[in-house]
Amino acid sequence: MLYSFKNDYSEIAHPAVLESLYRAPMSQEPGYGEDGPTKRAERILLKECGLDHGHARFIVGGTLTNLIVAAAFLRPFESIIASESGHICQHEAGAIEATGHKVHHLPHSDGKIFSEQVLQVVAAHQDDHMVRPAMVYISQSTELGTIYSLCELEELSRVCRENGLLFYIDGARLGSALASERADFALSDIARLSDVFYFGGTKNGALFGEALVLREPKADLDLTRLIKQRGAILAKGQGLGLQFEALFKDGLWLRLAKHANSMATRLANGIKKQGYDLAYEPCTNQIFPVLPAQVVKKLEQSFGFYVWRRLDSTSLVIRLVTSWATREDSVDLFIEALASER
Amino acid sequence: MLYSFKNDYSEIAHPAVLESLYRAPMSQEPGYGEDGPTKRAERILLKECGLDHGHARFIVGGTLTNLIVAAAFLRPFESIIASESGHICQHEAGAIEATGHKVHHLPHSDGKIFSEQVLQVVAAHQDDHMVRPAMVYISQSTELGTIYSLCELEELSRVCRENGLLFYIDGARLGSALASERADFALSDIARLSDVFYFGGTKNGALFGEALVLREPKADLDLTRLIKQRGAILAKGQGLGLQFEALFKDGLWLRLAKHANSMATRLANGIKKQGYDLAYEPCTNQIFPVLPAQVVKKLEQSFGFYVWRRLDSTSLVIRLVTSWATREDSVDLFIEALASER
Amino acid sequence: MLYSFKNDYSEIAHPAVLESLYRAPMSQEPGYGEDGPTKRAERILLKECGLDHGHARFIVGGTLTNLIVAAAFLRPFESIIASESGHICQHEAGAIEATGHKVHHLPHSDGKIFSEQVLQVVAAHQDDHMVRPAMVYISQSTELGTIYSLCELEELSRVCRENGLLFYIDGARLGSALASERADFALSDIARLSDVFYFGGTKNGALFGEALVLREPKADLDLTRLIKQRGAILAKGQGLGLQFEALFKDGLWLRLAKHANSMATRLANGIKKQGYDLAYEPCTNQIFPVLPAQVVKKLEQSFGFYVWRRLDSTSLVIRLVTSWATREDSVDLFIEALASER
Amino acid sequence: MLYSFKNDYSEIAHPAVLESLYRAPMSQEPGYGEDGPTKRAERILLKECGLDHGHARFIVGGTLTNLIVAAAFLRPFESIIASESGHICQHEAGAIEATGHKVHHLPHSDGKIFSEQVLQVVAAHQDDHMVRPAMVYISQSTELGTIYSLCELEELSRVCRENGLLFYIDGARLGSALASERADFALSDIARLSDVFYFGGTKNGALFGEALVLREPKADLDLTRLIKQRGAILAKGQGLGLQFEALFKDGLWLRLAKHANSMATRLANGIKKQGYDLAYEPCTNQIFPVLPAQVVKKLEQSFGFYVWRRLDSTSLVIRLVTSWATREDSVDLFIEALASER
Repeated sequence: MLYSFKNDYSEIAHPAVLESLYRAPMSQEPGYGEDGPTKRAERILLKECGLDHGHARFIVGGTLTNLIVAAAFLRPFESIIASESGHICQHEAGAIEATGHKVHHLPHSDGKIFSEQVLQVVAAHQDDHMVRPAMVYISQSTELGTIYSLCELEELSRVCRENGLLFYIDGARLGSALASERADFALSDIARLSDVFYFGGTKNGALFGEALVLREPKADLDLTRLIKQRGAILAKGQGLGLQFEALFKDGLWLRLAKHANSMATRLANGIKKQGYDLAYEPCTNQIFPVLPAQVVKKLEQSFGFYVWRRLDSTSLVIRLVTSWATREDSVDLFIEALASER
Repeated sequence: MLYSFKNDYSEIAHPAVLESLYRAPMSQEPGYGEDGPTKRAERILLKECGLDHGHARFIVGGTLTNLIVAAAFLRPFESIIASESGHICQHEAGAIEATGHKVHHLPHSDGKIFSEQVLQVVAAHQDDHMVRPAMVYISQSTELGTIYSLCELEELSRVCRENGLLFYIDGARLGSALASERADFALSDIARLSDVFYFGGTKNGALFGEALVLREPKADLDLTRLIKQRGAILAKGQGLGLQFEALFKDGLWLRLAKHANSMATRLANGIKKQGYDLAYEPCTNQIFPVLPAQVVKKLEQSFGFYVWRRLDSTSLVIRLVTSWATREDSVDLFIEALASER
Repeated sequence: MLYSFKNDYSEIAHPAVLESLYRAPMSQEPGYGEDGPTKRAERILLKECGLDHGHARFIVGGTLTNLIVAAAFLRPFESIIASESGHICQHEAGAIEATGHKVHHLPHSDGKIFSEQVLQVVAAHQDDHMVRPAMVYISQSTELGTIYSLCELEELSRVCRENGLLFYIDGARLGSALASERADFALSDIARLSDVFYFGGTKNGALFGEALVLREPKADLDLTRLIKQRGAILAKGQGLGLQFEALFKDGLWLRLAKHANSMATRLANGIKKQGYDLAYEPCTNQIFPVLPAQVVKKLEQSFGFYVWRRLDSTSLVIRLVTSWATREDSVDLFIEALASER
Repeated sequence: MLYSFKNDYSEIAHPAVLESLYRAPMSQEPGYGEDGPTKRAERILLKECGLDHGHARFIVGGTLTNLIVAAAFLRPFESIIASESGHICQHEAGAIEATGHKVHHLPHSDGKIFSEQVLQVVAAHQDDHMVRPAMVYISQSTELGTIYSLCELEELSRVCRENGLLFYIDGARLGSALASERADFALSDIARLSDVFYFGGTKNGALFGEALVLREPKADLDLTRLIKQRGAILAKGQGLGLQFEALFKDGLWLRLAKHANSMATRLANGIKKQGYDLAYEPCTNQIFPVLPAQVVKKLEQSFGFYVWRRLDSTSLVIRLVTSWATREDSVDLFIEALASER
């Protein structure tokens, strides 16, 4: 295969991240996140978030982060409002439900949900024989590569606060959102407007690891016990702290995300030049071209990608994901292959 | 502090393990355990286990491994029989119960439980208003540093099979057990006598990772969905496979475990030479000296360790853990400090 | 208030049911469903179902019955396919999710879902990062008062068997469905086409109680432990058995259901005569007239009912439920009140 | 069989309770506990408890009541401290664990646990890799027929408050405790000293039903949603309210409990007269004579009872339970049979 655009975690990790682990001093550190590198990484991250009194935890993966947030903040009969395209709705094998909570799957517009929809769900669940919606979950960037604008985030945040809902942002690809040319928000806006969010490492150059950030630490939340109970923290917690230190050093994460985005833009432009459309606005490192089925079939012989859905009898929407590791020549090979199918 | 004997995961990882990650080719691999390194590591591991038809999965940590085994094999009303000193009983913040299952906490003899106790629990739970014991959980080596002999394992295995119980061995420190001078069993015996076990990486030189091994793969077990649902697998699964490949290359894991054990033996001998007893038979890399409280107080100024329990009004049992990274001179410093307190 | 059409459980219970409890011999019976009346009721019920080898359990209520079926038959990552109007989707406060399972909420046609929709869900969940649909749940009669025809049931049953799905029928109002003039199926068809269903007592004259019926008893299902664990069985199990005996004596349940249906028909005819439409086909004991908002407001002063939904700026859909206890004159009072609002 | 002393729920219900259901007006009542009888029963119960601002809920059964208390008051990693003889430890098929929470099984003295044991569990669980004990559960009367004295209750209550633990009393047989000649506490003491308790109906003459009482209603507890989610409330809630009204009318519950206790005393005296001992102090309606195995074998031919445990090679402890329905002549038959075995 010439190149796989299946996802942004095919290559093991950015060399600087791996080096931070490889060159780590062979000194002894306390376990489970009490180590020096983790404390330093937390400090740096909170500063970048503009949070003076925030709190961060480094967790092994995204599904674990999502289910811990559900377990930490929801009572047994409380539910989460999400886009039906959301990661927790589709690709976590029912992790939230296994934690005991319903997820309302809302129809979406390019992967996004809006405050009016949230209000409708709240209004439709006043009866106490029903679950009580207690959290709004969005992904930034979304699973369709789009991003919420600052204005949209502010609106969702406002509605959440006015209705006693927790506002949670899944930032598995928050790097690519912040690095987007269309982004009109900063990391500090994400931190300010949400109650809790996570900043993803896995899909932005780390070997693994996600940083959960709380705007206001709640003393009685007992996050350590919860995280331990779900097996979400490394014994060798420094393995997480070191990676995030490396990602935040000299803005590495942002450079990686910008590169990924620019490769996606290059792909999108090339595809459009060949006369094909994109199903969703290309903003970040995931694009969704609409291609004839027989062209897709040819491309599959040389490139890796997912067929996202069937558009009509002749056309398919495919997903192409770029990463910090994607090279221009891989992109160009794809465009050339596409051109040769005209 | 001169040295911490608090646990066997203070140092980040063995250089060879870190190097396997650092030098990994920057090629693209499928995610979630479908990668080449993982498949190679599984092959090697199963071969060492003597399992022609076995199946292995690499999971991020021990608590996750334990709760996945519970979720995979138990029906909602089924329970686990374990020593009250077992990791699932004490140090996982109720992870098994959070998965819905009761754990029977049995009194232990030096960290071990025996077939007669198992039969008593089974006999006492015949009434169908009670839980149904369905799994026996032991740790090898135990949380008190002791090991089950081959004969004891065979007896537990026999009783499990005769009573329809699953026999599960938590091998967080299986390396140190196999490396023990007192061990009369091989890895193949563990694989043969248990239904499912895990071989621990974290406490034997890996950055993280545990290998779950099933003697007979059950086609309908759907482990992937379960593991995904609990967030227990890395997106970059090769990060697990590479580490286990490194640990199994030229028997690295065994050398590391032997070193850890020999450092514990050196500690034990030195302590006994000073006239102190050990609370449990020293077999592996954890020893439990009995020391006067005022001596413990002095040692705490220079060394890290846990006070395990109070023995009587003047004596404490402390836990000292050695690892692949413990050096002779650290051990000797401890002995010297102890001697100077005579 | 003149009369409440809010539900079919406003009156305590049919006199014959209450009498069966009141006149029960003051003899001693074993607890938890091992009693004589329960065994007799099971025998009668299975015979009426045409099941030679079936198995029945009497459970306190419908939500408990539904969550026990989920816990009994599903593995942790398995999900249920249901209409979004289904009782488990809306009115059980997330009981199924609290048991750990996702429910797929399908759009419905008059409260019903069809085999093609089921196949689409199955096709969309082949990826093992997703839940695995394992059960189809329908209500007969539906929450909108409609019924599945024999042909529709056979089709769903066939698709379930061909795709390894369990077919479960919530029969909270199965009596009214069987008593419907439009019913082209018998109780034996329900028993034959589903894998498991329940026959509701609460909404058909009992004080409480639902009868869970399995076509084929599975020896290893351990239903007793499950039912005990969820608190779903009475200590004085005869209190359930006696009621079902009474309901099945001389076809009492059918007479009660027919009466409820005929009162609904009388209501529906009267409403149509006044020139109003019904939102769904009136088949059983629930009807859904479409009325101007100001008429609804007037009716609310004298009658109890739920406003189901807003149809447009001037019209509302309301729900009227009749029962074994509804009298003709109550129905006629409603029609008169409606007529006076013309 | 001449008579069964197996339990206190063999006879269906006290005639006055059945009559309250049978003679209930055939009027319409709101569902799910909003009915008149339930509101009246709550008022009467709270008054008898001396609670001006308390709150009561009527729940179908004891296991449901216990698991709802766990779900309502505990966070996911919190645990319950109980006697190993406690109902939640032994006879609910793991209902608490299925709700996600560990139960600490403490050794008991005649079915009772004491404040010092509670403090030890708390002290042993300070590490945040462990569960956090958050509730003390006791049964009054205990599963061994004994009762906590006022002084013991006050001590447990004090320790709970000082340590932030919730004090929960399972009163499945609270009637028999309050009716005991040895009781030095009143219902108001139970209400005052616990945070939440339940007053059992099933084992004191009701057809079914337990009354959950909170000393201080917590507005944000959302008990209705929780109770609905677990299926613990009747649609026809008046069926619960009517029974409790009947039990509290003219102190019926107390008369029934006193009768049950007096029958147990008569049994105990007769047994002692024959020269046999009782394993536990006889205080309420459960007694535990120690009898030779061959005598037990003979008695089993004519009477129903459980063999509780083997005392030694020749003696067994059996359990005899009396109820509101036990008659003197049944007791005397047992004593005669015992005498004839001398």
